[in-house]
Amino acid sequence: MTETIAVVPGDGIGQEVVPVAVDVLDAVGEFEFVHGEAGDATKAETGSALPEETYELVAEADATLFGAAGETAADVVLPLREAVGSFVNVRPARAYPGVDALRPETDLVFLRENTEGVYAGHEDRLSDDLSTLTRVVTTSASERLAEFACDYVDDRGLDGFHVAHKANVMRETDGRFRDAVVGVADEHGVETEAVLMDAFATHVCLDPEQFDVVVCPNLAGDVLSDLAAGLVGGLGLLPSANVGPENGLFEPVHGSAPDIAGEGVANPSATLLSAAMLLSHLGYDDEGDRVRAAVEDVLAEGPHTPDLGGEASTEDVADAVLARL
Amino acid sequence: MTETIAVVPGDGIGQEVVPVAVDVLDAVGEFEFVHGEAGDATKAETGSALPEETYELVAEADATLFGAAGETAADVVLPLREAVGSFVNVRPARAYPGVDALRPETDLVFLRENTEGVYAGHEDRLSDDLSTLTRVVTTSASERLAEFACDYVDDRGLDGFHVAHKANVMRETDGRFRDAVVGVADEHGVETEAVLMDAFATHVCLDPEQFDVVVCPNLAGDVLSDLAAGLVGGLGLLPSANVGPENGLFEPVHGSAPDIAGEGVANPSATLLSAAMLLSHLGYDDEGDRVRAAVEDVLAEGPHTPDLGGEASTEDVADAVLARL
Ligand SMILES: CC(C)[C@H](C(=O)O)[C@@H](O)C(=O)O
Ligand SMILES: CC(C)[C@H](C(=O)O)[C@@H](O)C(=O)O
Repeated sequence: MTETIAVVPGDGIGQEVVPVAVDVLDAVGEFEFVHGEAGDATKAETGSALPEETYELVAEADATLFGAAGETAADVVLPLREAVGSFVNVRPARAYPGVDALRPETDLVFLRENTEGVYAGHEDRLSDDLSTLTRVVTTSASERLAEFACDYVDDRGLDGFHVAHKANVMRETDGRFRDAVVGVADEHGVETEAVLMDAFATHVCLDPEQFDVVVCPNLAGDVLSDLAAGLVGGLGLLPSANVGPENGLFEPVHGSAPDIAGEGVANPSATLLSAAMLLSHLGYDDEGDRVRAAVEDVLAEGPHTPDLGGEASTEDVADAVLARL
Repeated sequence: MTETIAVVPGDGIGQEVVPVAVDVLDAVGEFEFVHGEAGDATKAETGSALPEETYELVAEADATLFGAAGETAADVVLPLREAVGSFVNVRPARAYPGVDALRPETDLVFLRENTEGVYAGHEDRLSDDLSTLTRVVTTSASERLAEFACDYVDDRGLDGFHVAHKANVMRETDGRFRDAVVGVADEHGVETEAVLMDAFATHVCLDPEQFDVVVCPNLAGDVLSDLAAGLVGGLGLLPSANVGPENGLFEPVHGSAPDIAGEGVANPSATLLSAAMLLSHLGYDDEGDRVRAAVEDVLAEGPHTPDLGGEASTEDVADAVLARL
């Protein structure tokens, strides 16, 4: 069976980093690529940042590689996460030899709840002065995330994971989240340590090595994983996987970077590492490992794009990765 | 007129760092000190973490110096912030010469909204599976914070401030916050730059010098200021001021640190710097500056408590500060 991979480059540097990642996927496997449009440019043309065709394409594909979107990012990426039925956003944040990092010892994975919290938030304008947002937390979504987390640490031979929360203030909602996650882990004999998200923000800077896998509510995962990006040298290196029961949406954590778009110098590493996660998700573990190893080699030895202090182009980096496969 | 300062040491190291800060206040001015109890130990004794007498004491004082509370922190500090009518939590995060910092160039002040957001959150358990929290944002609270921020930057000769938010997801609530803050600043001719709170988390690690004053919703301010604490070397150095129209509650950002409580080695710097903020708030600007300068000298030259790699006691540090006044 040939798997279908939907390819949605989006805006800005998405148009530059996604095509080279498709070349890499093409080099290691036989896939059918189907192309979709989304983002600011698509909105300008069609009136919608995420046309129905693109949504369907992504929903029906076996996996999707997404680039980035500009101003319309939330209108594109949030529905696409839903299109693939994603309940967890897997965000590794690792420092790589050869790349300057504030904390070179950082090697973390955030498992971010991907369906609720403030993202499921119904908002109301109650008066000229007052607006509210209804934050949603369910035991079922928290438990599903926890099951995933238990498998994730088991697969990696780890004993347990941290659970970030703010249950001292959001007692009912984050209390529910924390207790549900810890409860599932207890059943599986997986160790957990609950940590306040504010305390985590301090401690991950002071000593990132004490953390491996961090399970978070949706917005906490958004902010804390971006913080970790700062510790490893920026967003240019962070891949992510929006994992659903079958489908998955793979995207670099960085945005469309309008300041450098069109110059051909965007760092493709985050997208190539996202493609590696896509391969593993489809069951091509060896191919995923090969792509990951090739990207790591190139990060260690160069060539490097300007964001990492080099002078190479996106193509140069992609060619160096292809040459190592 | 002799001002009344309420003194609430609370739990753990609060009992060690607050008394020495009272000595310092006593050394630079004539105040009437009134003492209140709060925290875990108080709850164990009286059944309440924050007895009515303490609440009244704080509400009626001209200012309060608070230490820390343990498990009951939220039950103590959130009502006390309300008792003083605080609408802004001022949190400077500065690296000091003589103290190891991940980013020694960090010199930031967070102005955190102190009354609403998820902290005003009404929570409901809607079913066995589902809980909600109603996040509250008003234009009036956002504008009051913005007026304070405009005065704050004016007083310091700065051109403007950043506004952290997550309005791409919380469009109605954080959109209201951002627009209200930017609107007030525009009227005052104060420059603003809005920044997504997740992007801020990355950028403050990569280049903290681009930020001076950061205006935040309540929870964003909680997490981002703790992140900044990680960049300057930990919570042991961060003071804070919960400012109300007249009254104010001054507290170190750190907690009760049960691991070192009772050993007499807690770093009193954050509490001494909070006392300096208290002095400035009461109009004793010179005295506040003197205390601040003395603490900075001691940070630069020692003696240092164990958290900073030294062997000094809390008393040693306090004596060194007193000797410099
Ligand atoms: C674009 C935005 C809606 C999105 C999010 O908040 O999830 C982004 O910040 C991310 O982390 O992928
Ligand atoms: C104890 C807790 C309620 C408090 C908060 O969230 O504001 C603390 O984290 C702080 O920052 O002062």
